[in-house]
Amino acid sequence: AQEDLLLAAAYVYDAQYNRNIPFETSPQAVRLYYLYNHWTMQAATYFFIFVDLFLAVFEDPAVYPLPFLATSLVEVLCLLVFFGRLVHFAKVTPRNVFWKDTKNICIMIAILVTLIDLIIYGALKISNVNSIRWSRFLRPIFLINFAESRQIRRVFRSIRNTLPEITYVFLLFMFSVLMFSLMALKLFGDRNLRTVEGSPYFTNYLEIVFDLYVLVTTANSPDVMMPAFDFSWWYSLFFITYVVINTYLFMSVFLAVVYNNYRKHLKNEIRKLAYMKRHKMVEAFNILKVKEGTEFVVKEAQWKQLVKLVAPDISTSHRELLLRVSDDEQKGYVDKKSFVRLADLLNIQVIAMRIQTHPLEHWMPHVYNSAVSLFIRSMVQHKGFVWTYDVIILINAVFIALDEENPLISYAEWVFLSLYIIEILLKVYTYEPRAFFAKTQFWNWFDTFIIIAALVATILNTSLKSASQYNSQQVLDIVFILRVLRLIRIVDSIQRFRVIMNTLINIVPTMLTFGGLALYTTWSNPEPTEVNGKTPHTIDFNEAAKLYFIAFHVVVVIMIINILIAFILEAFFVEY
Amino acid sequence: AQEDLLLAAAYVYDAQYNRNIPFETSPQAVRLYYLYNHWTMQAATYFFIFVDLFLAVFEDPAVYPLPFLATSLVEVLCLLVFFGRLVHFAKVTPRNVFWKDTKNICIMIAILVTLIDLIIYGALKISNVNSIRWSRFLRPIFLINFAESRQIRRVFRSIRNTLPEITYVFLLFMFSVLMFSLMALKLFGDRNLRTVEGSPYFTNYLEIVFDLYVLVTTANSPDVMMPAFDFSWWYSLFFITYVVINTYLFMSVFLAVVYNNYRKHLKNEIRKLAYMKRHKMVEAFNILKVKEGTEFVVKEAQWKQLVKLVAPDISTSHRELLLRVSDDEQKGYVDKKSFVRLADLLNIQVIAMRIQTHPLEHWMPHVYNSAVSLFIRSMVQHKGFVWTYDVIILINAVFIALDEENPLISYAEWVFLSLYIIEILLKVYTYEPRAFFAKTQFWNWFDTFIIIAALVATILNTSLKSASQYNSQQVLDIVFILRVLRLIRIVDSIQRFRVIMNTLINIVPTMLTFGGLALYTTWSNPEPTEVNGKTPHTIDFNEAAKLYFIAFHVVVVIMIINILIAFILEAFFVEY
Ligand code: NA
Repeated sequence: AQEDLLLAAAYVYDAQYNRNIPFETSPQAVRLYYLYNHWTMQAATYFFIFVDLFLAVFEDPAVYPLPFLATSLVEVLCLLVFFGRLVHFAKVTPRNVFWKDTKNICIMIAILVTLIDLIIYGALKISNVNSIRWSRFLRPIFLINFAESRQIRRVFRSIRNTLPEITYVFLLFMFSVLMFSLMALKLFGDRNLRTVEGSPYFTNYLEIVFDLYVLVTTANSPDVMMPAFDFSWWYSLFFITYVVINTYLFMSVFLAVVYNNYRKHLKNEIRKLAYMKRHKMVEAFNILKVKEGTEFVVKEAQWKQLVKLVAPDISTSHRELLLRVSDDEQKGYVDKKSFVRLADLLNIQVIAMRIQTHPLEHWMPHVYNSAVSLFIRSMVQHKGFVWTYDVIILINAVFIALDEENPLISYAEWVFLSLYIIEILLKVYTYEPRAFFAKTQFWNWFDTFIIIAALVATILNTSLKSASQYNSQQVLDIVFILRVLRLIRIVDSIQRFRVIMNTLINIVPTMLTFGGLALYTTWSNPEPTEVNGKTPHTIDFNEAAKLYFIAFHVVVVIMIINILIAFILEAFFVEY
Repeated sequence: AQEDLLLAAAYVYDAQYNRNIPFETSPQAVRLYYLYNHWTMQAATYFFIFVDLFLAVFEDPAVYPLPFLATSLVEVLCLLVFFGRLVHFAKVTPRNVFWKDTKNICIMIAILVTLIDLIIYGALKISNVNSIRWSRFLRPIFLINFAESRQIRRVFRSIRNTLPEITYVFLLFMFSVLMFSLMALKLFGDRNLRTVEGSPYFTNYLEIVFDLYVLVTTANSPDVMMPAFDFSWWYSLFFITYVVINTYLFMSVFLAVVYNNYRKHLKNEIRKLAYMKRHKMVEAFNILKVKEGTEFVVKEAQWKQLVKLVAPDISTSHRELLLRVSDDEQKGYVDKKSFVRLADLLNIQVIAMRIQTHPLEHWMPHVYNSAVSLFIRSMVQHKGFVWTYDVIILINAVFIALDEENPLISYAEWVFLSLYIIEILLKVYTYEPRAFFAKTQFWNWFDTFIIIAALVATILNTSLKSASQYNSQQVLDIVFILRVLRLIRIVDSIQRFRVIMNTLINIVPTMLTFGGLALYTTWSNPEPTEVNGKTPHTIDFNEAAKLYFIAFHVVVVIMIINILIAFILEAFFVEY
């Protein structure tokens, strides 16, 4: 029975978190499946994936060079972890499912190829031959293909789904660029115009194509237009038409195609997820069901044990509430229809409105309820308290903008820091600490983190200064950043801003995923284009780099950024 | 009865074209209303509005200076036309409606103020005092407030509706810029960094704010980042974070807010239009109704006369078809429910599928149906004909890209031009000319226009050349552009491209409206920023110009461009 319960709980858990891994139902496999889904195992996998990706920083050409032995050892460790995770997965999932899944095959091949490349590179290194670690480009495969990376895989699925439609628009867009380039060649090619650097202007067709392509990104504007403007003001019409058609019109059409596709597939995906969720809940029900009269049901005791297994964190009163909803006639059992809804019920955030007594009231009720204490508590709960601190933050902003060298201002920083610490202490004194630091109280966590970090960094900086008469620049930079971040707090005071900020904060995890993708695409390229600040109009592009720039623009701007915008549009439509 | 019919027809006409002008129902007012809505009157109004706006080109500071007397006379003429139009409108619409409409008051004040400014400026000019024609900025009022400019007013309504929500997001965005500027000041201010031009880097707070604001538009990227990158690679993280948050995240949120609002108001507007349409059709019905048994109806004869008045262009068979739909039981009258649908029925494009005989078949059937003629006609209708001309266009593209000086290539141009003319002649010979030049056949019109224009321009250029041994540069430029435009034709051969192109072509009128708005905003500014190619990083901005740049960016990029993108998104969702 305990094994049945574990299996049913696994199904409910999968339904609740929309996980879709087929697993063996033998007791041993279910136990392994629990281990596989444990957050520590998932966190460890992510950790090693990011270590593996981050290795690029320490490898030739490196930002911080490390000996090959060190990086290769770390890489082998990562590969071992990936292999271990894959073996674990193979033990959980049915054999035929495992071998049919291209994700697993991809990971295995990537591990194998990376090992071979590592060995060859090492051998060549020992015999003093320089070669390239080309398997570096395989590393994102681990990020994409491990079952945890559903979000990232969704982006890739979006790209793959949109590709046919985007391709047609892109061809039309390239046709437009080619036509405008031909016009530019005819209009400007024979006029002996010179660029600011003195080189011939718009005389070579392929160079014009590239210049006008870059103009779409506005990266070389206005430099690329200047010689034509200087020659005749009328030629501005050429560039205005170009920018309107290719930057605004076509870029909007790219967005429209991506967004349209995104919405369509989002609908399909939601429908599929709802179907899978129901399917799993029915499986769980079938395991636990007993016959009661004419219908199959799950007994109250079984149901309670299941909920305890699935959601060990929720309180007894919360569980009783769920039971009341699921068995509304108090018949002592839950029918199939109510049981299937359990996964959704568990996802509803129930805000415990029980007014918990403050720990201090427990320990020393006389002091906590004394006149002074009551005055302090009502003062903290007053609107004026928030306003006072808003004013303090504004004054703080002025002080930050002023000159740091003045010792008075330097001392003022200590005053502000103390004021902020006092504020947090007062709030924790007034409000129940567990409510104050609840999961949903993002701003309280933010405040506390920033203030503690600022305190540590300021103390560190002061002690370094007194010890060595020298500011550590890194610590000082962090102190500066923390001081400015503290000011964000003022946004929270205005209701309308809070709504927008909350939407933005919900977007952050996705932003980071997309940002990571865009950054890695930039980083792992042969000639860093954007990161080093060398953009098209400051360096001479060779042909390969030009093609790379176009490919980069297509992938990052046209695909990834548009999917991100589509995501943001949807997030705002849901929120507003 | 004729007067009743005219009044009913006016209601039907308004319903059909979604016009919402309240008008007096006296026979004289209705006749004036017909004149008011005549296309020549509307075209004349638009013509003078654009003449008025275009005057800016000829006034100080002028692109093409003209004497003050000339421009002022033209302006007075425009004002007279506007006043006349307004008086006409006053005679059509009820008195109390006229004086309650702020649009009319706006126009009157604008006319008055412009006249006063004109007189003052003229008087000062005569006494040799230089002053400013500040009433120039009032000119767009005529464009916006005349009842014809519904499209433009919709944009302004969109802006006004979105303003409150946008303001909150904008404040948050500015807060973010101010915070990042504060961070930049603290991180870079004390490091004695220098820009490429050698001036101090990031030392003045307000200058940093402006530089970072411009960075959002990427107009000064990468120059503004270079000193920090050169100092330490790590500071790229600062700029990456900045661009991600302020360029991508906030700009997407602006788009989301505008788009959300656009969709919401589009729905309301469509609902309101449908209500107004029904209301007007009911008014028309009430005028013409007679009692037939228990219900009110419109007799067939009356109905036919009405349709002849409302849509004089449609054929008898088309009108009979409409009657068959409206009186499906052939009872000799149209009931209220069917009558109300008439406005929508009239808007349906009925493609006359009657196979018209070619005029040549009429005039000389023996020649037109001879073996040779039949062979030519089947050849033109064959797929291979289209493919052959696609190949010719591609070869033409190569020739255009090659050197013009070579006389062989110069002659080749004549060959291509002849080939294109032959193509059009062959098509007109094969297909019925009225079908070939139907309103819906955009590409046939496009082809014919381009080829005839190219023919005229090429002949003009050749005759100028032989007359004066000298190419007229303007004519040559036009010839070049026409030659390249001819190549667009190839797009039409591929089905997928045609769908996208048709959507893009549908967008063109709106694009022009928006483009005009954006351009006028740019043009009428005290210091031309974009048009003259002087953008922020090449000229020193004074404080006023900085504020102007920010205002310009807010209005044009954040508002107008986003409404345009919203429009394009919707257009594509409808099309796909
Ligand atoms: Na730029």
